Amino acid sequence: MKSRAAVAFGPGKPLEIVEIDVEPPRAGEVLVKITHTGVCHTDAFTLSGEDPEGVFPAVLGHEGAGIVVEVGEGVTSVVPGDHVIPLYTAECGECLFCKSGKTNLCVAVRATQGKGVMPDGTTRFSYNGQPIYHYMGCSTFSEYTVVAEVSLAKINPEANHEHVCLLGCGVTTGIGAVHNTAKVQEGDSVAIFGLGGIGLAALQGARQAKAGRIIAIDTNPAKFELAKKFGATECLNPNDFDKPIQEVIIEMTGWGVDHSFECIGNVNVMRAALESSHRGWGQSVIIGVAGAGKEISTRPFQLVTGRQWKGSAFGGVKGRSELPGMVEDAMKGKIELEPFVTHTMELEKINDAFDLMHEGKSIRTVIHF
Amino acid sequence: MKSRAAVAFGPGKPLEIVEIDVEPPRAGEVLVKITHTGVCHTDAFTLSGEDPEGVFPAVLGHEGAGIVVEVGEGVTSVVPGDHVIPLYTAECGECLFCKSGKTNLCVAVRATQGKGVMPDGTTRFSYNGQPIYHYMGCSTFSEYTVVAEVSLAKINPEANHEHVCLLGCGVTTGIGAVHNTAKVQEGDSVAIFGLGGIGLAALQGARQAKAGRIIAIDTNPAKFELAKKFGATECLNPNDFDKPIQEVIIEMTGWGVDHSFECIGNVNVMRAALESSHRGWGQSVIIGVAGAGKEISTRPFQLVTGRQWKGSAFGGVKGRSELPGMVEDAMKGKIELEPFVTHTMELEKINDAFDLMHEGKSIRTVIHF
Repeated sequence: MKSRAAVAFGPGKPLEIVEIDVEPPRAGEVLVKITHTGVCHTDAFTLSGEDPEGVFPAVLGHEGAGIVVEVGEGVTSVVPGDHVIPLYTAECGECLFCKSGKTNLCVAVRATQGKGVMPDGTTRFSYNGQPIYHYMGCSTFSEYTVVAEVSLAKINPEANHEHVCLLGCGVTTGIGAVHNTAKVQEGDSVAIFGLGGIGLAALQGARQAKAGRIIAIDTNPAKFELAKKFGATECLNPNDFDKPIQEVIIEMTGWGVDHSFECIGNVNVMRAALESSHRGWGQSVIIGVAGAGKEISTRPFQLVTGRQWKGSAFGGVKGRSELPGMVEDAMKGKIELEPFVTHTMELEKINDAFDLMHEGKSIRTVIHF
Repeated sequence: MKSRAAVAFGPGKPLEIVEIDVEPPRAGEVLVKITHTGVCHTDAFTLSGEDPEGVFPAVLGHEGAGIVVEVGEGVTSVVPGDHVIPLYTAECGECLFCKSGKTNLCVAVRATQGKGVMPDGTTRFSYNGQPIYHYMGCSTFSEYTVVAEVSLAKINPEANHEHVCLLGCGVTTGIGAVHNTAKVQEGDSVAIFGLGGIGLAALQGARQAKAGRIIAIDTNPAKFELAKKFGATECLNPNDFDKPIQEVIIEMTGWGVDHSFECIGNVNVMRAALESSHRGWGQSVIIGVAGAGKEISTRPFQLVTGRQWKGSAFGGVKGRSELPGMVEDAMKGKIELEPFVTHTMELEKINDAFDLMHEGKSIRTVIHF
């Protein structure tokens, strides 16, 4: 079938809106009509050419919501008409990782997903006969996309797609890291570095967890109003101090915060976040995605004196098991999504969404088809 | 009173056996007659001048056992005649850290201990009228030493001091890191990097925890026989491979080990240990003490894909609460200490103990007075 799509033909180039061909779903696959998709920094990261796994030409996009159109052979968990969120972190329920109960990092489709193809090693997209690759197992920048059954969370059909598409990536990542990775408890102190979509979501998570002191850090003070609305008790701009921000936070708190979160993808900030955490038991969670080849470092003394360095992918959330409940929470207002959606536009304008993001003017732009 | 002691008069110099003056214990302090002391790599590290906190002249030594001779004003937890192990990690029971229940990193005497003085800011040692500093709150290289009450674990008087002195540092550190920091469970896979006293103790801890696969790594294959005796199921010499040892371990295990332990103090090995740990949930514990200014590093992707980087000091053991029970375990044979004691000698020969250690010929030399 034909589908309007924003195609990344090469690194560093604007997306091109074209009509691509989408093949029907094969065994274990599902054809989804995407209704809405967010534009995330990770899309921009791959488009820039910095992502060592980036494959071109490709249909990017991984933060969407849509409706099942057709299912391939053997698909049992969804039927046409079901409302779904595509998952870049699949949940097969059967691999070593799913069965462990310790992680959400399913490997069912990991190897092929990283190469931009479906689990059988081929792509369902083409343009003028030229193959177009998939992206993160989702490719939500196309009106019609094909995803693996294990990469679909079935959600309440009453949910507002313009909002819940954000649970496909950023918001779930931030909230989940607070609850699943750090396991923030009532009264704990928290520092959140970077107040983009993920950082603001982590703030919501910290408020849900009834954290005590919630320190929000960003070099752009324009973010502070929304941060306070989402639960920050204090906001810090590192440019306001003539010493490293970790020293400022240690002084403010005595011994550091119980939990810190890096929501940017900057390895220097990752270090600052770790070193802001509490002697004896503080933990620091890396959420941001760093550029290729970048490394984190610190003195081992930081760990020997009780700090823990962790990371979180998709907030540790098991997509098929847990995302439907998060959609319900959003519908009940327990998760606020609307404030993240600063802009909406049609697919044809999608390059503007990247510009707004690069200029720091948007939290999330949601594309509708 | 007079006391025979091995004094470090300056960095890089051999210790000198001299008769020093020891003042009586002041309030909250205890005079201890040391019967035995191990010689640990940390003593050598400080003696070398590499330790940025090193203060000279000083009485080194921190892995001892002895008998209480006299108590200062207000001391209630020990009386003359009690058998004790001095603690470089105090346990006051009253500070923020002790009360947290989350860490053994008591701060009651931390600041003064780091400066080589008693909590009142002065030293009890002198030689020809010149002040001699304390070391790690213990100074066990003196027949008589003064320590803070909060830095003494009272132990079973029937225990063999020649063995249980090792619970004052290395053995407790290795065993404790397995149980308290990593919390190794039955069937878990473990990799232990470095088969000195701490690494061999960690092996014992892993065996106690009924770990499944226990991989021991050292560049000196002479260590492998004892490692196997202590529970290693496989021994690896990194020099036998033409690829990084973390790649070897990942290949051997599929996805890495559940827990890895760095027992050397080498920042490159710390990285290898982290990168040997299991995708999704592996954790790596730094036990070794790195040189001044050394830093650990890795790609943040290692953490984002589920690995955790931790550290352990004194094995996470609360000395006054938990060390007496470990002494009982040693008396019942649940902790084997005798194989660690490869050499014993009198205080006068202590420089030979450092030589044996530097040459890799000893696990532990125990000095008796």
